[in-house]
This record gives sequence, C-alpha cells and structure tokens, in this order.
Amino acid sequence: MPDANRGLDDGNVIAVMRKLGIAARAAARTLALAPAPQKDAALEAMARAIEAHEAAILAANALDVTDSIARNQLASFVDRLTLNEKRVTGIAQAIREVAAQPDPVGRVLATWKRPNGLEFERVSTPLGVVGVIFESRPNVLADAAALCLKAGNASILRGGSESFRTCVEIAKALRTGLQAAGLPEASIQMVPTADRAAVGAMLAGLDGTIDVLVPRGGKNLVARVQAEARVPVFAHLEGINHVYVHAGASLDMAIPLVLNAKLRRTGVCGAAETLLVDQAVAPSFLKPLVKALLDAGCEVRGDSRTLAVDPHVKPADDTDWTTEYLDAIISVKVVPGIDAALAHIDRYGSHHTDAIVTGDEEAAKRFLNEVDSAIVLHNASTQFADGGEFGFGGEIGIATGRMHARGPVGAEQLCSFKYKVRGQGTVRP
Amino acid sequence: MPDANRGLDDGNVIAVMRKLGIAARAAARTLALAPAPQKDAALEAMARAIEAHEAAILAANALDVTDSIARNQLASFVDRLTLNEKRVTGIAQAIREVAAQPDPVGRVLATWKRPNGLEFERVSTPLGVVGVIFESRPNVLADAAALCLKAGNASILRGGSESFRTCVEIAKALRTGLQAAGLPEASIQMVPTADRAAVGAMLAGLDGTIDVLVPRGGKNLVARVQAEARVPVFAHLEGINHVYVHAGASLDMAIPLVLNAKLRRTGVCGAAETLLVDQAVAPSFLKPLVKALLDAGCEVRGDSRTLAVDPHVKPADDTDWTTEYLDAIISVKVVPGIDAALAHIDRYGSHHTDAIVTGDEEAAKRFLNEVDSAIVLHNASTQFADGGEFGFGGEIGIATGRMHARGPVGAEQLCSFKYKVRGQGTVRP
Repeated sequence: MPDANRGLDDGNVIAVMRKLGIAARAAARTLALAPAPQKDAALEAMARAIEAHEAAILAANALDVTDSIARNQLASFVDRLTLNEKRVTGIAQAIREVAAQPDPVGRVLATWKRPNGLEFERVSTPLGVVGVIFESRPNVLADAAALCLKAGNASILRGGSESFRTCVEIAKALRTGLQAAGLPEASIQMVPTADRAAVGAMLAGLDGTIDVLVPRGGKNLVARVQAEARVPVFAHLEGINHVYVHAGASLDMAIPLVLNAKLRRTGVCGAAETLLVDQAVAPSFLKPLVKALLDAGCEVRGDSRTLAVDPHVKPADDTDWTTEYLDAIISVKVVPGIDAALAHIDRYGSHHTDAIVTGDEEAAKRFLNEVDSAIVLHNASTQFADGGEFGFGGEIGIATGRMHARGPVGAEQLCSFKYKVRGQGTVRP
Repeated sequence: MPDANRGLDDGNVIAVMRKLGIAARAAARTLALAPAPQKDAALEAMARAIEAHEAAILAANALDVTDSIARNQLASFVDRLTLNEKRVTGIAQAIREVAAQPDPVGRVLATWKRPNGLEFERVSTPLGVVGVIFESRPNVLADAAALCLKAGNASILRGGSESFRTCVEIAKALRTGLQAAGLPEASIQMVPTADRAAVGAMLAGLDGTIDVLVPRGGKNLVARVQAEARVPVFAHLEGINHVYVHAGASLDMAIPLVLNAKLRRTGVCGAAETLLVDQAVAPSFLKPLVKALLDAGCEVRGDSRTLAVDPHVKPADDTDWTTEYLDAIISVKVVPGIDAALAHIDRYGSHHTDAIVTGDEEAAKRFLNEVDSAIVLHNASTQFADGGEFGFGGEIGIATGRMHARGPVGAEQLCSFKYKVRGQGTVRP
C-alpha cells in the first residue's frame, strides 16, 4: 500500500473528491479566459519542471516498479509503468508539442448575418472540467493534463494505483509549471488517494462538476466507465478494424499496406484485426497475402477459402470476426464483393477505423461514404488512427461515439462553443 | 384511457420498445445514405399528408381536448394541446421550412493534407437515432420528426398521453410521406403506447439504439430526463436570462429592449427574468425602466435601490434571482459595475441567454467573452434565443450543456462527423 490516504473511509473519499470538483470548476472559469501565451508559458514551464524533477520522478517510479514486480504483474504492464531518462524526456517533449499547437479557444467557427441586422458568431470555448481515469501509464497524466490545459479545461486525473508514487511526482512538476505562469493550481488535480471509491465519485460526475470523462486503458476499464458514468464519455471500447482488398486493388500496394495495418504495432487500437479479400482477386491475391503475413510471424485464422491456400492457416470461427486480438493474429475472409464487405464491417466492426485498398475511385467513394466508422481510409494503413498522425499535436484518446468528438480527440475536440450575437437595439417582433 | 395498449404489462412494453429501437437503427442506416432530394420529397409528402389528413387529425384532437377538459387540466395546458385548421396548416408549413434548408449531411467541415501525402476530410454524418420525449403539444411530434429526418436520423417519439389520439393521426400522415418517398417507415416511429414504462425504456437508451434524447416540455420533465437518462441529452432545464443595462447604454435603446426581452412572450425560455442596472446610470435610468415595466403590466421585484424608485415595486428576496417566472414578473437589481454584473450572472444564471445593452464596445466585448452562456447578445433582445431566429429553419430545442450541441439545436446540430482519409498506399513508419 504505497499511500497513507488509502485508509480514508468512503465518506472521506467522497468529501475529498467533492472538494476537487469545486476547485476544478473555479479553476476552469479562470482558465477559460486565460490568454494563449499564458497557457503556453505554463506548458513550457511544466515541461522544464518535468526535466528538473527527473531524479525524483525516476526514484518514485523505481518504487512503483519494484512493488509491481513483487506483485507479479505481467511484463507488458511493468513495461508501460516503467520510466527511464529517455521516457521522462519524451513526456516533457510531448508537453512542448501541445504548447506549439494553435490555441483552440476563441476560434470563430462560423459567422452570418440575418435580414434584421443581427450578426451571429459561433466561437469556440473550453468544455469545462475533464475527468481522466487511466491505468498505470504515468505519461498519460502529463499528456492528458497538457491537452486539457491547452483547451482551457481544468482536469481531474486518477491513475492506476500501481503508478501512484510516480504520478505524485509528475503532478508536482505540473503544478510548478502552473505556478510559474500564474494559473490556478487546481487547473490540474491528481486524485490524492488510490482508494477505488474515488473512481466511483468521478463516474457520478462529482455533483455536476465533471463535464466529460476520458478513460484511458484496457477494455475492462473502458467498459466500466461506459456502463457506469453519469456524464458523457469520450472513448472507444475496441478497434475491430478491417482492411478490405477490393477487386480494383494492386497486389503491390495491398501486401505492404496489410502488413503495416496489422503488424507495425499490434497492441494499438488502430491495428487491423480482419482482412477481407474480394473474390474477384482472391485467386491471385489470397495466397501471397497470406504468405506475407505468415512469413512476418502473424498467425492467420481464415474461412474455408483462406484455409485452402496454406496449411499454416488455422480455421476461423464466428468469434474471430468480433475479436480484437491486439496481437500478431489476423482473421481473413473472402467476400463476394463490396456489398458483402460493407455488410461484414457493419455487422462485426466496432465503428473505429476501416480501410479499403483499391484503384477504383467509385468503390473507394462508396466505402468512405457507407462505412459508419470514425475513420475511413482509402489506400492508407489503419495504423494512422492517431491524433498525432492527424496533425492534432497529440490526443487524449480516440472516440467511437457519435456525440461531440469522434475519432482522435485533440485539443480542438476538447472545446465547446457559444453564440455571440450583435444587434443595434434589435428587438423581436 | 384513450389507448388499449395501456393494458400492456411492463415486460410487454419493454419488448415493444426494444423492437422500435432495432427498427430505428436499421432505418437510420438507410436514412444516413438517403440523397437530399429523397429526404426533401418525403418532407414535402409529409406536409401534404398532414393537410390531407386534417379532418382526421382535428377529430382525434377534439377527443383528446374533451378528455383533458373533463380531467380539469389547466387552460394553458389545454391551449397547447388544442389544434384548429390554422394550427394544422402551421404544422405542414413548418415541415416545408425544414425541407427548404440545405442538407446538413455530407458537408465537408474541414480538409487538410499531411506531409506524408495523406489527405484528410472531416465530413458531417447523421447522429443515428434520436429519442424525443414531449408533453402534450402535438406539433412537436411533426417538428421534431422532420428535423431528425432532414439530418438523416431516425426518430422515436413519445408524446404526453393526453395528446395520444392526436399524435396517432399525425404519425399516420408522416408515415404516408415516408412511403411516398420510398424511405423506411421506421424512420419515424411514435411510441405506440401511452404506458409510462415506455419513457423508462427510452431513458435507458433502448439497449444502445438511442444515441441522444431530447426532452421537450416543462422543468419537471427535463429534470427527470437529465437525472435518469443513460444516454446524452440535449436540453435546458431553465432560462434564467439577464439583461444588463451598462453604464454606456442609452435609455432610448434600453427601455424597448428590456420590455421586449421580458414581455414579448413571457412563457418562452428566452424571456428575460432579471434586469441588472449599472449604478452609474441608475439615478437617471432606474425609474423610467421600472415605470415602463409597471406600465406594461409587469410585476417588478427589486432590491432596496429599486424599491426606492416606485411604491409599486415589491421587495425581491434571494430566491427571486434564481426564479424562472415564465410570467409578467421581473427581478431588478442595481450592480456596482460590469464585474458585479458578470459575477451575478455566473452565480444565479442558467447559462442559457444573457444580454448587455451598451454603446461601449470594450464592455460589450468583455460581456460576450466572459458570460458562460450558450447565447450572449449585445444590444439585442434575449427573445432571439430561437433556432428560427438564428436562421436554422427550426429547432428541436435549446441546449445549455457544453457537449456537442449548445444553444438552438437545428438539423446541423443533429449531425455527427467522420474522417475520410485518402493515401497512395501510404503506410505508417
């Protein structure tokens, strides 16, 4: 138990959390009006403070890592938790990249004039207070806090308990940056207890002080937040992403694209999980596509047509089409044409990211129009599903819901808007 | 009890509602791809069918009205329920106005290119399935269904039970219009039972088939939906709207503007409820402002300064600043300056619509920037808080939340978006 606060009873945790909410709301009012240079100065000071606190951060992290190893956590878990000098530098650099983005607040999104002379302006404003619930990846604390600050939002951040001591040290550095720029310390608040009741309080929205929740972590965390949150959530549960190799594709383009979509990194939400091959090209394409995947070390689970091209292919069952492997495994199916491909994606997909490979512009147009996913690509890898790759200077996550933000959620998507209306003493008849 | 279905037990209601949800989701898929002329043809056919069904609609309405009078409903309630030939024509006309708007789906919201050659497009898409829960105002059924259809959304509509027979007849006409244009009948579904369990099922989101809920009615309905909904809600609980007469105002502009903001219609959410008068001009402005309000038949509840200017002013207590009168009553307070006005609005307002009257551009700029409301006006009446007045061709409601839609919710705000990305076989390094 790395934290004395764990001894708080539930009532105390609720009281502590309520205070965070009230402080965050007050800070959000100040932040909403903070000029861009002040926010950027805070971000730069935060980056410098992360670098200056490196020794303290690494020392705290070493304790967290030792405990996690002692508790027999998975190696991948420990890897995500572990910091080193390079990773601390990366955290500071990511904050500077957020600072370098244009200010998302105060953009004039639309202007128009009505016949009665009223002039309308739709102008971007911050969302308010963002709650972030993340697993034991300490870099998420700094990334998320920086993006929220850039968009003029206060943030309340609750990290996995195994990263508690690391997060405390990172939060200290972030606070130093806020102080240096004269912004309220409550602009970024780490939940000061590892008690799980704090998560429940955040899911309930802290008496209306949290405007939106962002869960960052595995499927179990996201599912819980989506099921229990009483406030809006930006998230995706899973990325069951497809690459459809259409009849008009070239094999030369399809092979490297499929390999990249599946294997560049298998653990990211933008990784492809299913390959659909049009039957018009299956006789010539299927075997080399499967061979390329197998040669690259990918397990292939196929339908009967796919099984027939290589003895190393394993049979796919119906659960394979709805499985996010997040591993070097791919399901492969031959489809009669674009209608069948669209129907498969609609039935089994998760509305995250799907790609078509084809030289046929009409087919590409249909695919991009008709696939109901946040991100649809033509002749590009699904692994571009990432705010950085979109040019957003980072992302707080990827959303598959259709409300407010969809796809990568960057600083711009962490904004709301208001209407400014100017008259000349104009009254309504 | 106007409806045989009221005898359904809760389990049956849930089963009926679940079917509606599944059918709506399927219809939404078709609607999302329906070309604009097909949607507009459906709307025109719906308007014609409303006119053609006028006799049946009025006959059903007469039964609903008779029952409501027999049950001793308030006169204002019965008025909202009652249709006549002119109101039926108005319903048809409102549908035609929605048809005349530009198609909100498929708009290119942004385009950009990345250094790796990827071309990005952010394109508007429908939201999906909209649930509308409204009180006994039958015109809302047609208005809301038409706006949803325009934006490519399926709708599930549940009206107040006292308007059930009227709504059944209006829904028949809407269905006729859908059939005429070859769109799925399930594009617009009225809840086929007046059983209250149906509302509970909608609040739960019908197994994820409802994407957003829109309550239309009084504060009790909206509060219940906001408290219990498991899906996002577009709504405002109340409009505690302010007119701030600043030191730089002219009395000639302030008087008609305040009268219009308060009294043009007192029952609408954009009506002003509180007048704030800057102390710099109070000595000369307060008395004529109060007199104009009293002369127009408005009750004035004032602070001590306001009480002193006219014996007909009643004392305001602290609850007056948080009361949405929706009546010919106004609360009046003298404030020391713009900071105090901003603080009052922040503390007591409902983030709906607030106006400043001033000739001072700097003060106007501060007010428009700093008041955290969906709509902020300079030298214009708060009664412009209306989608029609914004040029949206109608509205499904006004939202005070900061997520997705804020202010008047028209067809454009009933849309989501997706990213279309085009490469040349582009893979991620």
